[in-house]
Amino acid sequence: MIARTLPFLAALAACAPVHAADVPYPAGYRAWTHVKSMVIEPGHPLHASFGGIHHLYANAEAMEGYRSGQFRDGSIIIFDLLEANAADNAVTEGKRKVVGVMHRDARKYAATGGWGFEGFVEGNPNLRAVGANAATACFACHAPQKDNGYVFSTWRE
Amino acid sequence: MIARTLPFLAALAACAPVHAADVPYPAGYRAWTHVKSMVIEPGHPLHASFGGIHHLYANAEAMEGYRSGQFRDGSIIIFDLLEANAADNAVTEGKRKVVGVMHRDARKYAATGGWGFEGFVEGNPNLRAVGANAATACFACHAPQKDNGYVFSTWRE
Repeated sequence: MIARTLPFLAALAACAPVHAADVPYPAGYRAWTHVKSMVIEPGHPLHASFGGIHHLYANAEAMEGYRSGQFRDGSIIIFDLLEANAADNAVTEGKRKVVGVMHRDARKYAATGGWGFEGFVEGNPNLRAVGANAATACFACHAPQKDNGYVFSTWRE
Repeated sequence: MIARTLPFLAALAACAPVHAADVPYPAGYRAWTHVKSMVIEPGHPLHASFGGIHHLYANAEAMEGYRSGQFRDGSIIIFDLLEANAADNAVTEGKRKVVGVMHRDARKYAATGGWGFEGFVEGNPNLRAVGANAATACFACHAPQKDNGYVFSTWRE
């Protein structure tokens, strides 16, 4: 889900219209399995796009994929990015910046490795940050992860 | 779950024997609902006890409690503390330090507000950090949270 370049904010500004192949909003994802978390601070090369604290969540199909290495259709991975408030030697969660989604459908999203990518601005199901720009805004950075199913994260117990 | 003083490490060193009323190891908690997370850095007053990145998880009963304000018997809240590796303007997760547990049983744990407290060192079900010391090692700091069911955390969407 993490990009190596910074096209994401540019895409955010675009807020593309909805198309037939659009990735659905991942209703209920907060009850899915929490995979891992990370804080990206000012000065990090991804800060402009992904600064804050992010949590990765996986639905049941994606959890199978983390374990088997094969993500089957229906697998959904969430990159839930919140502001990170650093103060008094602690980092606490702030408001939601974006809900990033990877949604597996090998046929529908064949052009982007079998994954549909979307970002819902501030978690708003009606504000799409990626739309038709998934190839450049998301997949370009995920492509080198081909051997891991185009996924950056790994499961930890 | 967060203490305001630092008895926890002292308790860690004790590794108390198991008693009949001991809090069970929370098998499967990594699939429970992720409530929130926080990083406690060097210099924070709780760093010696709780330094690192921690994630709070709740079982279904505890999720009801966060929403209703009433935690019923069977509610379990997990404080999963991992090392926080700060490098290159990012904070990533390291190895597990302790799995803290609050386990609701109003009768069994009446002396500590109806909650049983335990800490499993490095997540090892056989290494108990709290044992018979819950009143001083845990509850003393949770007591002021009485109006919130002795719980510090709150649910966020």
